[in-house]
Amino acid sequence: MLTAADKRARFEDAWNVIRDELLTHFKSYGMPAEAFNWYARNLDHNVPGGKLNRGISVVDTAEILKGQALTDEEYFRAAVLGWGVELLQAFFLVTDDLMDSSITRRGQPCWYRVPKVGLIAVNDATMLESAIYHLLKVYFRKELYYVDLLELFHSVAYQTEIGQLLDLITAPPNEVDLDKFSLKRHSLIVVYKTAFYSFYLPVALAMRLCGVPDSYVLASSSESVAPYELAKEILIPLGEYFQVQDDFLDFSGTPAQIGKVGTDIVDNKCSWCINTALARASPEQRKILDENYGVEPTPEEQELAKKVSDGKSGEEQGYLGEAEKRVKAVFEEIGLRRIYAEYEEAVYKKISALIDNVDEGGARGQEVVLKKEIFRTFMDKIYRRQK
Amino acid sequence: MLTAADKRARFEDAWNVIRDELLTHFKSYGMPAEAFNWYARNLDHNVPGGKLNRGISVVDTAEILKGQALTDEEYFRAAVLGWGVELLQAFFLVTDDLMDSSITRRGQPCWYRVPKVGLIAVNDATMLESAIYHLLKVYFRKELYYVDLLELFHSVAYQTEIGQLLDLITAPPNEVDLDKFSLKRHSLIVVYKTAFYSFYLPVALAMRLCGVPDSYVLASSSESVAPYELAKEILIPLGEYFQVQDDFLDFSGTPAQIGKVGTDIVDNKCSWCINTALARASPEQRKILDENYGVEPTPEEQELAKKVSDGKSGEEQGYLGEAEKRVKAVFEEIGLRRIYAEYEEAVYKKISALIDNVDEGGARGQEVVLKKEIFRTFMDKIYRRQK
Repeated sequence: MLTAADKRARFEDAWNVIRDELLTHFKSYGMPAEAFNWYARNLDHNVPGGKLNRGISVVDTAEILKGQALTDEEYFRAAVLGWGVELLQAFFLVTDDLMDSSITRRGQPCWYRVPKVGLIAVNDATMLESAIYHLLKVYFRKELYYVDLLELFHSVAYQTEIGQLLDLITAPPNEVDLDKFSLKRHSLIVVYKTAFYSFYLPVALAMRLCGVPDSYVLASSSESVAPYELAKEILIPLGEYFQVQDDFLDFSGTPAQIGKVGTDIVDNKCSWCINTALARASPEQRKILDENYGVEPTPEEQELAKKVSDGKSGEEQGYLGEAEKRVKAVFEEIGLRRIYAEYEEAVYKKISALIDNVDEGGARGQEVVLKKEIFRTFMDKIYRRQK
Repeated sequence: MLTAADKRARFEDAWNVIRDELLTHFKSYGMPAEAFNWYARNLDHNVPGGKLNRGISVVDTAEILKGQALTDEEYFRAAVLGWGVELLQAFFLVTDDLMDSSITRRGQPCWYRVPKVGLIAVNDATMLESAIYHLLKVYFRKELYYVDLLELFHSVAYQTEIGQLLDLITAPPNEVDLDKFSLKRHSLIVVYKTAFYSFYLPVALAMRLCGVPDSYVLASSSESVAPYELAKEILIPLGEYFQVQDDFLDFSGTPAQIGKVGTDIVDNKCSWCINTALARASPEQRKILDENYGVEPTPEEQELAKKVSDGKSGEEQGYLGEAEKRVKAVFEEIGLRRIYAEYEEAVYKKISALIDNVDEGGARGQEVVLKKEIFRTFMDKIYRRQK
């Protein structure tokens, strides 16, 4: 059995080959060393340093669909698609961080904050996206499903950008208006901005790679299945659940637990927590939320947060400004922890039922069919996660 | 005979249909009115207001290749590809203007400077690019050449981004270093940043639409032709010539003539003019260039430029700061006007010879073949243009 670290190492090995392909192609255009080095730094800073869950899930799903270990060649091709998802995510994160004025990402400065980069990050981000299509051409051009891969990346990128637009105009930085928020709006943002690219895309790519057709007829029941639609019906709610967790952990997680200080309240994020609170707040609680949500700590509070005690700064210890404390107090009054626990159990039941309903009864003509295990694997990684 | 205004009007009519398709699709995702209106404004502000030369040249080229007027349906499909080029250009211009801190574009404020837009322009730009692939899917999905269209847009977008990267690191705003400049570097930037998307892309798209194959054998000479390579060999030098003209007009054109005030010198642009001057400057002239290129007017000079006389501001009259005047004086000393005139005649001869060499002798199997007229039409629009 491969450990998680082994899996990651193997996936990272594939990146070295992919990175070489991208840089060799770049050089073939006669680009000078200065530009070559810039592009290499862009790739190295932005693509490989994350958790790689999305990318590795392409490989995992392909293995489940195939029902046995992948050959080295099959592994590499699955990994190319996985790194395609990681490149897409890198494209989004570089631009999101710039638009959000974020400070750090994956324990290092955001790319636009690296000296000399600045707004060049915008063009660098678009190059990360273009790299996906270059890789697909190099490694998949001859496949019948090549065009399906292209369309998957196109439509998911577009959906993600649409979700990002909705998020940006719902919660613009420095312009708090809680009237724009609602649980419905939150769901729409989360589905488009996160669920499609993080959950549906990796699975759909692996399905294409393994030759899952657009529809098949079950041998057991003679029923017709649209497997990509079916996968979407399970993975989109799963992605929404994942993001709700993320929002809840931003509120409830300690820095020691989640590896960062939650900033959603100060950053005026359209999070599940604030939307749930707004849906249940009394007029008095609503007033507190209106006056304190998205409010930066005062300069004095920021000074305090920077002060170091016990070898850790106040920030690392999760020091809060007064406005943020008041918002969190309302969240507690409303019983957000209990509401979340109830939500988690309900959504777990709902999605588990969807998974149980997947019919693995085999298809006429022996095509590869969807398996429950794909979705169970995702669910197991997510359910009741604490970080 | 259609006038240029008629042609433009017909092309703009197609945009209304395309715009509707994009917005109807957007709405089908259940997006709220606020997001719908934002996307409509993004499209309206950034896509249709330019000269439309690139887009219309797809239609023109298709007509030449077909050898007769296009049917309404053929026209519309050519126009979709033309608007694809315009969407790609809009994507580049929105991000370029942001990265360059430009003020106006096509007589209106740059998109990022429109109130409430700001950095959201980054995401808006990526949506303009994604719109291309949605349109190709809607209108071309069933065609055998669908994948060729996708690959053309992918590779040209990537090449343009690579050219933009080279430009950005060669001439970063507020960091003048003329040692980085050279005519060779200028050529590389221009070919990648401009020539591929402005010249090769529209023609190659029309060629795909008209069924020009990847290679054909001439009936006249039994010689094998690679028409896309051949088109590239002519259109890339043509695109380079076009950009050199643009650079020269920025220096030599009066505001009345070119409709704007040239700002390449003040903006530290890696233009043909400065690179030609650097290649021929004496040490004294080089010193003047080093000290004055990319230097903003002083605050007093900026005040003077804003002052109005004869109903026009100093800016409209082409008022110059002292640094810019010194650079222009060196350009004149070096004889840039004469050098340009010689360059123009030489490049005209060279490209005309390439065009004359195109063999229209008909291909076996009666495929549509390349015609000289495609390239001559471009050349006639460009040669000795004054604006």
